[in-house]
Amino acid sequence: MKLCFLLLSAVALFTGVLHAAPPNVIIIFADDLGYGDLGCYGSPVIRTPNLDRMASEGLRFTDFYSASEVCTPSRAALLTGRLPIRSGMCGNRRVLFPNSEGGLPPAEITIAEALKEKGYATMHIGKWHLGIHAGSRPLDQGFDHSFGLPYSNDMDGRPDLPKGSSGSPNPPHDGWNVALLRDGEVVEQPADQTTLTKRYTEEAVKFIREKKSSPFFLYMPHTFPHVPMFASPAFKGKSRAGIYGDAVEELDWSVGQVLDTLRQEGLAENTLVFFTSDNGPWLIMGDQGGSAGLLKDGKGSTWEGGMRVPGIAWMPGRIKPGVTTQLASTMDLLPTALALAKAPAPKDVTLDGTDLAPLLFESKPLPARPYFYYRGDQLFACRLGDWKAHFQTQTGYGQPKAEAHEPPLLFHLGRDPSEKRNVAANHADVLARIQEAVKQHQAGVVPGVPQLK
Amino acid sequence: MKLCFLLLSAVALFTGVLHAAPPNVIIIFADDLGYGDLGCYGSPVIRTPNLDRMASEGLRFTDFYSASEVCTPSRAALLTGRLPIRSGMCGNRRVLFPNSEGGLPPAEITIAEALKEKGYATMHIGKWHLGIHAGSRPLDQGFDHSFGLPYSNDMDGRPDLPKGSSGSPNPPHDGWNVALLRDGEVVEQPADQTTLTKRYTEEAVKFIREKKSSPFFLYMPHTFPHVPMFASPAFKGKSRAGIYGDAVEELDWSVGQVLDTLRQEGLAENTLVFFTSDNGPWLIMGDQGGSAGLLKDGKGSTWEGGMRVPGIAWMPGRIKPGVTTQLASTMDLLPTALALAKAPAPKDVTLDGTDLAPLLFESKPLPARPYFYYRGDQLFACRLGDWKAHFQTQTGYGQPKAEAHEPPLLFHLGRDPSEKRNVAANHADVLARIQEAVKQHQAGVVPGVPQLK
Repeated sequence: MKLCFLLLSAVALFTGVLHAAPPNVIIIFADDLGYGDLGCYGSPVIRTPNLDRMASEGLRFTDFYSASEVCTPSRAALLTGRLPIRSGMCGNRRVLFPNSEGGLPPAEITIAEALKEKGYATMHIGKWHLGIHAGSRPLDQGFDHSFGLPYSNDMDGRPDLPKGSSGSPNPPHDGWNVALLRDGEVVEQPADQTTLTKRYTEEAVKFIREKKSSPFFLYMPHTFPHVPMFASPAFKGKSRAGIYGDAVEELDWSVGQVLDTLRQEGLAENTLVFFTSDNGPWLIMGDQGGSAGLLKDGKGSTWEGGMRVPGIAWMPGRIKPGVTTQLASTMDLLPTALALAKAPAPKDVTLDGTDLAPLLFESKPLPARPYFYYRGDQLFACRLGDWKAHFQTQTGYGQPKAEAHEPPLLFHLGRDPSEKRNVAANHADVLARIQEAVKQHQAGVVPGVPQLK
Repeated sequence: MKLCFLLLSAVALFTGVLHAAPPNVIIIFADDLGYGDLGCYGSPVIRTPNLDRMASEGLRFTDFYSASEVCTPSRAALLTGRLPIRSGMCGNRRVLFPNSEGGLPPAEITIAEALKEKGYATMHIGKWHLGIHAGSRPLDQGFDHSFGLPYSNDMDGRPDLPKGSSGSPNPPHDGWNVALLRDGEVVEQPADQTTLTKRYTEEAVKFIREKKSSPFFLYMPHTFPHVPMFASPAFKGKSRAGIYGDAVEELDWSVGQVLDTLRQEGLAENTLVFFTSDNGPWLIMGDQGGSAGLLKDGKGSTWEGGMRVPGIAWMPGRIKPGVTTQLASTMDLLPTALALAKAPAPKDVTLDGTDLAPLLFESKPLPARPYFYYRGDQLFACRLGDWKAHFQTQTGYGQPKAEAHEPPLLFHLGRDPSEKRNVAANHADVLARIQEAVKQHQAGVVPGVPQLK
């Protein structure tokens, strides 16, 4: 293995000297995939050989976070490198709905916009969910092309759709009217959801092949495993874990196709691929709800299961295979991508992420930094080292109002990763340090104009 | 990787033709290690690079079971290939205590006895816990040599030891009077528990080196991570997960030393190494209690977390690397070891295990078979395929009496591995099939004379 790594490193170096081509960047973003839903994160029931291989060839994060416990804010944060509160992409309504008037503000600078400036071909394939109005759409936000759904696959349901249909193990094919768009134009309505993953994958493979000689950025936010759950005939009924497992196994296949294409085209050593999820598993969906593994709660909550997600970085020959316990988040992807592309940081913009390059390429620890858990526009929790304080909590499955905690709840995520034992009473000093970090943070937050009204 | 495997296979074949030496067998048995406590099973907080490597070079089981939810019965079952009820090694008192009169009956045939008949050198290193009286001790049960503790490290506590000391993050070094024995003779009392893992490892390495030209069987049931938790100075305070993590990381180091020795001595391709745990994590021990990952409950319970444990088989060049979802258990190790050694099955003995060779060496599925979950001498649950019915349940953390279920609770361990959603009402046919399997099973069980009184 060590020899293989050295050889690949040498090849990569040699190739780098010859071409010095700017690295490509691919971000693959699952929807509602839980921390415990991949083989390499301990799932006993879902087979993910491609993601497991990606992890064994790359760097697997144990402590990787999405920036929000729900969809829209999480996506805004990933593409801008900023907490959703700064862009206004969060609030009481939680996510954008088809009748929402807001969207990702045009002034926000996305990874796509920054890389396009450096000559990158840019494409979005999959679910958008950052706004359907002018200024917020994929082509307004730096993408040359876009193929996919404007929002979640359970939105725009048929008026007579029975309640609970989206969580059904056999959802009706004609239950939802969501459209499949190419570059903003409807190409199919309702979208045939059974073949979406397959078609997203074909588009991705085509894009990579077509753009192989120019640097490219591919943002691939999948529709699944968000409910209603569909899978291609080749995957339906094949998993032990029911239709949820089928959908994740098809997603795994898709990742394998993308990585295989990179290998075939000789691009693997010059392409950073990052795989992660937008938030934790949607536990109220039962069998269609996935698992956060040993973590507490899921989507909609700032307990770890709501925001800690799988995170795998892959760039053979550049990234040394391994597992890291360093804390990182989706907001680090913009600074990392921009540094790789030698693009300047956005001017006069407060970023919440940091360039992961030292960790990815030199196995160096990242600077210590607190992590802030927001639910909507409210700060619910803060992590400092392995300590996490909750100022408010709310479960992801039906607790109607947040519960405030004074003193805050305190957990040690090393000795107690499942957040079972509140030790606030014994660690006033830790709480004081966390509260100081929160104070500093909040002094620097200027909330954006709320978009999710 | 594929090429490496073929090369190793060829080397193994060639070596086999030259030597035709009977394969060695090593069983490494952790104490109270949970399903979620290794990196390769999704632990975010405990670093286990050696076991992760063992898993990536070997076959990792997602559905591997101990035969009991507590210590003594589990060990009896592993060494005999039989449910504890058949040997009488289970009952209301749960495990053997220093004042117990019973022990593993001399008539029971252990792996050590069967392999000794075939000329194997046999050694036990670690915790015994199968009886301290004549007829039940290691040297009475087929082991040429033995080095370790007669029972759990929390037994034989100092009379004035404060309650809760065993679950302390800093247990007193002189809190317990348990002796370290060599071949039945006391060599140290109280045993210095801080260096036990290190000394067990040194003994194992020495045994392998000394016996490298004869076939050998090494049974290595570690003392940790059972409470009270101790670790060598080299490991103490090094883990994110506190002293529990330190103890598991030292255990991982120990496994690495054993595998390295096999590699150095050229024995790796001719030695089957199996790693597993005696039962789930002892959750009432809090920070010192480990994790069952996404599985429900832990030690003392027949929920999955009590009995499903890590299971890794390793024999480079013979076992194809991978992950299997096939159901297997510690009771399969006796038939597997005996088949490898070409030893005959014990005469007139009902075995509950099956030879794993087709799965290990030919990637073939095992015959479908029900799995029976006993708590003491009571059948609590039965699994058939992915379905599991609970006739009784009792948590591992203080529920004083078992709760009977009529109709039984029914869970699908594929779609619902955490046993959250009882679906008995919709699957009367499945329950009927399980009840038929139970009836057949119970007709064939002759309980042994109770030993744990």
